[in-house]
Amino acid sequence: MKLGFVSIVGAGPGDPDLLTVKAVDRLSRADLVLYDALVTPAVLQRAPRAQCFFVGKRAHRAAITQDAINHLLIRAARRGRRVVRLKAGDPFVLGRGGEEALALRAAGIPFEVVPGVTSAVAAPELAGVPVTHRGVSSGFAVVSGHADEAYREILEAIAPQSLTLVVLMGLARRAAIARLLIERGWRPATPAAIVWGASTPEMRVWRGRLDELADASADRETDAPGTIIIGEVVAVGAIIAERLDPASTMAAMAGR
Amino acid sequence: MKLGFVSIVGAGPGDPDLLTVKAVDRLSRADLVLYDALVTPAVLQRAPRAQCFFVGKRAHRAAITQDAINHLLIRAARRGRRVVRLKAGDPFVLGRGGEEALALRAAGIPFEVVPGVTSAVAAPELAGVPVTHRGVSSGFAVVSGHADEAYREILEAIAPQSLTLVVLMGLARRAAIARLLIERGWRPATPAAIVWGASTPEMRVWRGRLDELADASADRETDAPGTIIIGEVVAVGAIIAERLDPASTMAAMAGR
Repeated sequence: MKLGFVSIVGAGPGDPDLLTVKAVDRLSRADLVLYDALVTPAVLQRAPRAQCFFVGKRAHRAAITQDAINHLLIRAARRGRRVVRLKAGDPFVLGRGGEEALALRAAGIPFEVVPGVTSAVAAPELAGVPVTHRGVSSGFAVVSGHADEAYREILEAIAPQSLTLVVLMGLARRAAIARLLIERGWRPATPAAIVWGASTPEMRVWRGRLDELADASADRETDAPGTIIIGEVVAVGAIIAERLDPASTMAAMAGR
Repeated sequence: MKLGFVSIVGAGPGDPDLLTVKAVDRLSRADLVLYDALVTPAVLQRAPRAQCFFVGKRAHRAAITQDAINHLLIRAARRGRRVVRLKAGDPFVLGRGGEEALALRAAGIPFEVVPGVTSAVAAPELAGVPVTHRGVSSGFAVVSGHADEAYREILEAIAPQSLTLVVLMGLARRAAIARLLIERGWRPATPAAIVWGASTPEMRVWRGRLDELADASADRETDAPGTIIIGEVVAVGAIIAERLDPASTMAAMAGR
């Protein structure tokens, strides 16, 4: 029997039009799609002939283990199936894609990695914020704010006010993150923003200061994933955003 | 006369199949495309009905100024044209997209920003390197190695060995960058890699150590843009890459 093939694919921030051409191709030909929590239903619709299985986790829900996911990928490929492992954003940015690639390699399964649009860049961008801007910031750092607290070590390793910080999966710990940065010497008035559900119809933006981050909330209840941005570029983004309202952009396009 | 519209669009790393669906749509409908040096001919072919103008710069060639580019964008939009400002990778990552957005806003031109796959993530990834990997690195920093030397300040702001470093546009200064990092306390044996022409048929990868970076070169002469990656994740990537040879990947897909 012929060996299958695994494509580890980035799904981008949520809007299916931000999938790459290659991602759409792989989804359209997939037999099986294993997808994470932050992959949107609109993206899954691009895989009409595949069986789609949720293998992610959300708060308060038991998660399938990484070993079990690896095992599913390997077993399906051995059965000759075309498998897409679909991960929100880019599969190698805080997504454990590297671990899955190592497992596939060890099992002798042919695979590829299809890069995606990472929310670390796209979420700020869609709110008008350039993660770098001449004369303001010529670099940025992307950090996971996940529960394992590895973020502390990284945030402590970066000199205050030196570059733009982007924190993914850090909403639940935003108070601790803001406190840590201010203790480390970041200015309490450093501009900060949160973008929820970037690129989706539920997108919401909060803008304020680092010392207000703990109390930040969207203008409407949302459980969409949030990206935190900290740095002077947020102030640049507020100016750009005046014209970048998604609704007005869509109206301008439709009016053509 | 009706006002035109400007789409500031990320072209991704080079392979047209790594354009987003939205980028392909905007290119296919554009009247005018203003593109940068690192945009590949294969990508430009997706804009068959547009006039395409090169507004980038390469070494030894006089460049059109940023003001002149802004002026071109504004004038074309005022004449009612659908304009795509096409930038390699993502337009808000070290691409001066923010400056163009500010100029459009000041001129009252309706515009949008279409995020792209950034080479900062995709170039390592296509060489097998995950910029983050559990237990190895939970964050990464992206820095421009461009001539204005802003990179010094940023590299000095990051504690040695604390996260993965990705340097874009830094090939010409790789000796100075490596020296600076080692002086700052990075281990000379830190794994390092360079990826030239990621995602294109000319892609080349060098792997070695930080203290060998100055003398690193591709196995074949290339003037393709290069991405530098520094950190322990490069060693993880070398294992993944054993199975991720682009040629074998393509063969595996073709053989299905």
